[in-house]
Amino acid sequence: MRIVFPLFERFTALDAIGPYEVLSRLPGAEIVFAAVMPGPVRTDVGLALVADLGLGDVDGCDILVVPGGPGTESVAVEGNPLVEWVRSVHEHSTWTTSVCTGSEVLGAAGVLEGLRATTHWACVDRLESFGASYSATRVVIEGKVMTAAGVSAGIDMALLLAKLVAGEETAKAIQLGIEYDPQPPFDSGSVAKASSTTVDVVRAVMAARQV
Amino acid sequence: MRIVFPLFERFTALDAIGPYEVLSRLPGAEIVFAAVMPGPVRTDVGLALVADLGLGDVDGCDILVVPGGPGTESVAVEGNPLVEWVRSVHEHSTWTTSVCTGSEVLGAAGVLEGLRATTHWACVDRLESFGASYSATRVVIEGKVMTAAGVSAGIDMALLLAKLVAGEETAKAIQLGIEYDPQPPFDSGSVAKASSTTVDVVRAVMAARQV
Repeated sequence: MRIVFPLFERFTALDAIGPYEVLSRLPGAEIVFAAVMPGPVRTDVGLALVADLGLGDVDGCDILVVPGGPGTESVAVEGNPLVEWVRSVHEHSTWTTSVCTGSEVLGAAGVLEGLRATTHWACVDRLESFGASYSATRVVIEGKVMTAAGVSAGIDMALLLAKLVAGEETAKAIQLGIEYDPQPPFDSGSVAKASSTTVDVVRAVMAARQV
Repeated sequence: MRIVFPLFERFTALDAIGPYEVLSRLPGAEIVFAAVMPGPVRTDVGLALVADLGLGDVDGCDILVVPGGPGTESVAVEGNPLVEWVRSVHEHSTWTTSVCTGSEVLGAAGVLEGLRATTHWACVDRLESFGASYSATRVVIEGKVMTAAGVSAGIDMALLLAKLVAGEETAKAIQLGIEYDPQPPFDSGSVAKASSTTVDVVRAVMAARQV
């Protein structure tokens, strides 16, 4: 089972690594990180992950996981090679998924036209510009297309996907393997729960980072 | 504020990337990934992250975050260069922390002697062999030493650390920025919550992976 994570400059590491840590534990998983050119790809912070393959070397996959990050703003445009690759691979994928603003890459590839989808809460307008209808939920499933909300939501999405692909017992074992018994010290992880001051602060920071 | 993640072959990516995604958003954060030799370092699954610096180029830090993974079994031994580096850096760090079996590296460096600490639930004996007393909690704070439970627990630890370093408002803003409003589809993330069958399955898998 080939699971591919396409990388691009200024992606957000946890968008990819959350699902990777879950899905790589599926029986028979073959994990591939790929980019337009193979080699190190820098995150929004500067850390580099290595894409072992070029996109041209990956002609298909069972599960596609597109991460988001500030870089999507320049990637998620018609004609971008990564977008064209996503469009092609999506035709025969079993699952096409995104985390955070990775949904914009799916959108630019025409995958989300007329579908409900989710993204980072601060980037709803950009998602909807691709013809998707934003759903303020953590994970949205529309046929074989699955989208997750911001950054950390990819872990929850991947556990759902693990259940659908390999059954609930396997998914539960993966949850225990990564000891995913979340205990955030605050309850400020969504717009509905955070104070309006916190929301304003994050909007300003994200505008500056162009997430 | 210099935050250093020492990497080693067969570390677990989420152990590092969870805290990185939180702590890199602290005002003034300077993130450094380092290894005995600079260059790509492979995780337990095969993905490579790039260590931009060698440990010899990093003579101190404000926050040290040691990830775990199957690789700790060969790293966490007296005389290992990474262990010796941790011992040295710990002398002047503001915070010395670990995620998952990264605690064994702290243990081998003598940091945990006589302290309460946590680790991955399946690796308690190895932690205690270093003179630490295992606490079955998600995060343990002993003075300037903070240890987190398995893999995903590093996110919760980092949010606590963010609060201690930069205040609760900043930590809450980071939580909202990464949309950390966890909604796991099952409640199987700890030994106390998972079925005994699931626990047995994971113990067997982890023994085979040497996590």
